[in-house]
Amino acid sequence: MEPLFFTLNIIVPIIAVISIIVGILLIFKIKQMEEGSDEMKKIAKAIREGANAYLKREYFYILIISIVLAVVFYFTLDFIFYGGIPFTLISFVLGCGDSILCGYIGMYIATQANIRTAYATKGGIGEGLKSAFNGGAALGSFMMGIILLSIFGLFNIYSFIGYTDPIYLTGFGFGGSLVCIFSRVGGGIYTKSADIGADLVGKVEKGIPEDDPRNPGVIADNVGDNVGDCVGMSADLFESLSITLVVSMIISFEPEINLGLNGLYFAILVVCAGIISFIVAIFITNKISAGNNPIKALNRGLLISGIISIVLFGAFAALMLFNQGAYTGGMWHFNLPIWVGVLLSAIMGLIVAIIIAYNTQIFTSGNHKYAREIAKAGETGPATNILKGYSIGLKSIAIPGVMVAITIIFAYEFAGIYGIALSSLGLLSMTGMIQSIDTFGAISDNAGGIAEMSGQDELRKNTDVLDEAGNTTAASAKGFAIISSGLVALATVGAVIDETNITNFVNIALNSPLIIAGLFIGAIIPFLFSSLLIGAVENTAFKMINEIRRQFKEIDGLMEGKSKPDYAKCVDIATKGALKNLIIPGIMGIIVSIAVGFILGKYALIACLFGNIVVGLLMAIFLANAGGAWDNAKKWIEKGNLGGKGSPAHKAAVIGDTIGDPFKDTAGPSINSLIKVMNMISLLIAPILAVIFL
Amino acid sequence: MEPLFFTLNIIVPIIAVISIIVGILLIFKIKQMEEGSDEMKKIAKAIREGANAYLKREYFYILIISIVLAVVFYFTLDFIFYGGIPFTLISFVLGCGDSILCGYIGMYIATQANIRTAYATKGGIGEGLKSAFNGGAALGSFMMGIILLSIFGLFNIYSFIGYTDPIYLTGFGFGGSLVCIFSRVGGGIYTKSADIGADLVGKVEKGIPEDDPRNPGVIADNVGDNVGDCVGMSADLFESLSITLVVSMIISFEPEINLGLNGLYFAILVVCAGIISFIVAIFITNKISAGNNPIKALNRGLLISGIISIVLFGAFAALMLFNQGAYTGGMWHFNLPIWVGVLLSAIMGLIVAIIIAYNTQIFTSGNHKYAREIAKAGETGPATNILKGYSIGLKSIAIPGVMVAITIIFAYEFAGIYGIALSSLGLLSMTGMIQSIDTFGAISDNAGGIAEMSGQDELRKNTDVLDEAGNTTAASAKGFAIISSGLVALATVGAVIDETNITNFVNIALNSPLIIAGLFIGAIIPFLFSSLLIGAVENTAFKMINEIRRQFKEIDGLMEGKSKPDYAKCVDIATKGALKNLIIPGIMGIIVSIAVGFILGKYALIACLFGNIVVGLLMAIFLANAGGAWDNAKKWIEKGNLGGKGSPAHKAAVIGDTIGDPFKDTAGPSINSLIKVMNMISLLIAPILAVIFL
Repeated sequence: MEPLFFTLNIIVPIIAVISIIVGILLIFKIKQMEEGSDEMKKIAKAIREGANAYLKREYFYILIISIVLAVVFYFTLDFIFYGGIPFTLISFVLGCGDSILCGYIGMYIATQANIRTAYATKGGIGEGLKSAFNGGAALGSFMMGIILLSIFGLFNIYSFIGYTDPIYLTGFGFGGSLVCIFSRVGGGIYTKSADIGADLVGKVEKGIPEDDPRNPGVIADNVGDNVGDCVGMSADLFESLSITLVVSMIISFEPEINLGLNGLYFAILVVCAGIISFIVAIFITNKISAGNNPIKALNRGLLISGIISIVLFGAFAALMLFNQGAYTGGMWHFNLPIWVGVLLSAIMGLIVAIIIAYNTQIFTSGNHKYAREIAKAGETGPATNILKGYSIGLKSIAIPGVMVAITIIFAYEFAGIYGIALSSLGLLSMTGMIQSIDTFGAISDNAGGIAEMSGQDELRKNTDVLDEAGNTTAASAKGFAIISSGLVALATVGAVIDETNITNFVNIALNSPLIIAGLFIGAIIPFLFSSLLIGAVENTAFKMINEIRRQFKEIDGLMEGKSKPDYAKCVDIATKGALKNLIIPGIMGIIVSIAVGFILGKYALIACLFGNIVVGLLMAIFLANAGGAWDNAKKWIEKGNLGGKGSPAHKAAVIGDTIGDPFKDTAGPSINSLIKVMNMISLLIAPILAVIFL
Repeated sequence: MEPLFFTLNIIVPIIAVISIIVGILLIFKIKQMEEGSDEMKKIAKAIREGANAYLKREYFYILIISIVLAVVFYFTLDFIFYGGIPFTLISFVLGCGDSILCGYIGMYIATQANIRTAYATKGGIGEGLKSAFNGGAALGSFMMGIILLSIFGLFNIYSFIGYTDPIYLTGFGFGGSLVCIFSRVGGGIYTKSADIGADLVGKVEKGIPEDDPRNPGVIADNVGDNVGDCVGMSADLFESLSITLVVSMIISFEPEINLGLNGLYFAILVVCAGIISFIVAIFITNKISAGNNPIKALNRGLLISGIISIVLFGAFAALMLFNQGAYTGGMWHFNLPIWVGVLLSAIMGLIVAIIIAYNTQIFTSGNHKYAREIAKAGETGPATNILKGYSIGLKSIAIPGVMVAITIIFAYEFAGIYGIALSSLGLLSMTGMIQSIDTFGAISDNAGGIAEMSGQDELRKNTDVLDEAGNTTAASAKGFAIISSGLVALATVGAVIDETNITNFVNIALNSPLIIAGLFIGAIIPFLFSSLLIGAVENTAFKMINEIRRQFKEIDGLMEGKSKPDYAKCVDIATKGALKNLIIPGIMGIIVSIAVGFILGKYALIACLFGNIVVGLLMAIFLANAGGAWDNAKKWIEKGNLGGKGSPAHKAAVIGDTIGDPFKDTAGPSINSLIKVMNMISLLIAPILAVIFL
């Protein structure tokens, strides 16, 4: 082995372990903080228990399905194709296990940090900021470390016994995908059915404030923030980073890229760069206070993390790929040195992500015209509010869609599908920071809930500032997650084409009816998938509304605050609703991919994946932005515009916001995962399809 | 010339002329009917004048754009490519002119038949049925005749001077497309902004019935039914039939089909078969009364027309293609005789259309569970009603999408892209009947309006029966229009591939970043296009609502029926709203296709067209079905279910219905036309692209 690789084999695990340790230290740091009053503790405990109970049952479902799949994979892939060595089995089980562990830790941290953040705001917004940020950072740091350690470890073990091909790692990515789609779907249904139920009865019908302890749905709502936003996003980022890393490694070995171990180790180093930059960013965000402006503090963290990442990215690209010559493919044959091409691709990915995040801001923020137009349209009732928001959501996909098209063309020109993979990996080297700014939102939201429910009005004022900042940063985080999903999915199909041994490209040309049929089938999936999720939220919310209405009617003295509502009943409805509606959307993408692959063949499968990516990506952006815009239109009115709370425009906006809830927090983010899970199962079965269809 | 073709050159024009004469006779028949009271005449006159005024202005816009395009086409295509002979110019101008003529006649008939239908129901539902049906039939018969005469005439004139290639006819189809997209967009915006405005203020806020003369928006609403449903659908069917006929003729000459004049004349004969079967169906529908069951009568007409069409189709296929050997392409190489293959394709198209119409029924009719579920979801408010309807609309695309995929595979297997074209032409041979059952709905709706406004309650009861039947048949007609658009669009791309001289199919393979970028761009268009239309409806409806509210507030004695509202003001708002928002969506598809073709090249253009067809088709079905389901959920409640009118579920359903209005009657049907116009402009510029991009 070359001395360089030997050195890296020592350094990389050290970085991974440091990352894990930083995560654990941050957990201890949070645990040392004060929790506040007994009332607050009681509420936090209820949220924690609800989240815990739900997650256990969700993970039980995942466990069953994983075991079935693991057995199937062993007897098909490992036994028949890989000589009985359980590559897929081990990779897959580890991928599932790691992701579940991260999700569990994420939930644990979030439900510990929420109460402490609420209490910390006694010392000012800055203190609360640190606490909420560190909660997300702990998870982000832990997660990046564990992914790096697992994938790098597996690769080295497999190599050690003589199997260097990174295709054996696919199972790890698929494990992350499987856990993610269930987490996204289940968490998304849970959080939004609780949210809608609590809002429509509490805020609209009864006129009591958000998070009011008299509202029977309030604990379920706060549990939802944890199992939905926090655990869902953590599973999503786990999946994205794992897949992107594995796919980048695989592509490095593809014949037309042919970078071998250099390209593979470079991908590993990109993640190391991300860890290093993130640890610096954590340190700085904690040390330098931003006073009362949490967004500024978080943006600074993001900026620092991004700059260090890119600098290290360039340095590592030069280190690993300087002698690898030029990439000679593409349309215009730029023939750039591969290390330059890869660097340009990554920068391109970053720029596109920033443009898309900015596009999200323009189309959803209350500071820009669109959300205000939606608010104004509500002056003639909910119908015009909803039509306006729908129209604006549809419009918001244009720039992201075109940017993705441009990125594909140029990243491919710079460095082929390796360029596309690395444009996504460059983005995802910031996983830690993205996780932090997202979890920050969920923790702040919960902190506000705890403050309100325990009647601590002075804390609530500060948590509101954090919460508002959290909404903005979470929206950016979502944008990053969507765009990286799209790019990695495109790179993955490239890998699927190679691994299914498609060399005669005429077979995947658009003049073939089979390809067109495949495109149609792939395009149908996101429609059907969204239908199931939105329907499930509606269905569960319907039950939730009726239950909350019943409690207000039947429990004497509830409105007067003299008696307690039955929180557990609402938690139970959300839990059951989520679990009942989990399975079909969870396995749908997997089954369709397998069916298309084996019935219509590998060529149609490629088309199916593309149909799914194109439609899924645009639909996910539409759903996220429409939902965000409706939400912010309502918030803008609540600040006193157009007559403020209680005005006709506000009533319309509340309905618009409710429509947007499952759009932006259930269907939209779940489609991210749908796209990836379909690609990963396809990559997994690719070696079989390569043999069956010649 | 062979004796067969010589004979056909005499017979075909005769059939075309007979069709036109039948249409004209039906117009006279309607004009002879009695109009009813002076009050009714006054109302009908107001509707007629409003429709006339709007159409004149819409056609003026189209005229300007057509002149510009005609000049451009002459100096590019005709001058440079076709030796200065104005093939494109003449074809295009005739296509535009014919379509405008048909739209104008359609509007004329509809606004004459509405009042006569209302009055005819004095003699029972059967009399009203005949009147409303004959109105649509007059238009359908006239239109089929004029299309056949024009295309066949042009082809023979061009052939006579030595230019037999049917590609010179493309301009005719594009002319139809251009008029259609403007008619669909403008009419759709007009009808729904008026409808929403009139409904939300009149029915919801003021609690007065539909079509109440006190409602200031009521004339605009009735004008909208004519310029939207009636003229829009007529332009759509004109476009579909013209394009399908022209494209079938062109494909017959493509090297891999190579049926030459036999295939070309067969396509012509399919339209003749449609005319013959339609005239028989008109006769039978008029002679045999169906008593009080209009749906039965119309379905019987459809059935008769369908059976005769298919029988003649088979006979003509045998006549023209018996000696043309077998089609040897496809995946499985069925090697069917081409006349059998074509017949099977047409039958397949028909079966798929029936399945899709049935699917529409299941997902939208108040007699099935889905619409009722939507109604029930409204018990917890408008948000759940809307989410349920949205979810069900998304789900409804699965079967149509899969059926299209299956049709493509098999029609291609049977007879290549000629099979796909003929599967659509087979469907469209029933254009006359489809036009009749659609216009029937618009006329009955208007008849009801006139009866209500003139206070003729006994007539209203009968027109209500016709109106309900019209809603059902119009939904089926829409399904036919969507599916035929999808199939002909797919056949057209096949022709574009050939005409741009793409022979190396690797260039349009899915491993190319340019192709993926093209797919994305094509997929973006339907999103953006729908956004513009829904936004325009919302915007105009907003103004309309405020104007109607103003009139109710400021005009003394309006609610008491003592003074008249200012109808003209509302007609003016709808007219201006439609015209203002017409241009950008009207030319968007054309400009994007040209830009992609010339900037990214012909390969990316092919991908762009596919992205657009796949997404556009599914989105059009979703929008149509979601809108239909919301509408029928409301109607089901109004029949007395769930508490009936005025109940909370009803209030929610009215909002859902309003959201669905621009979905089903503006954006959905316009996407039909968007798909076709993009394909036709691409086919038109194909010869240029073939030369520029080698």
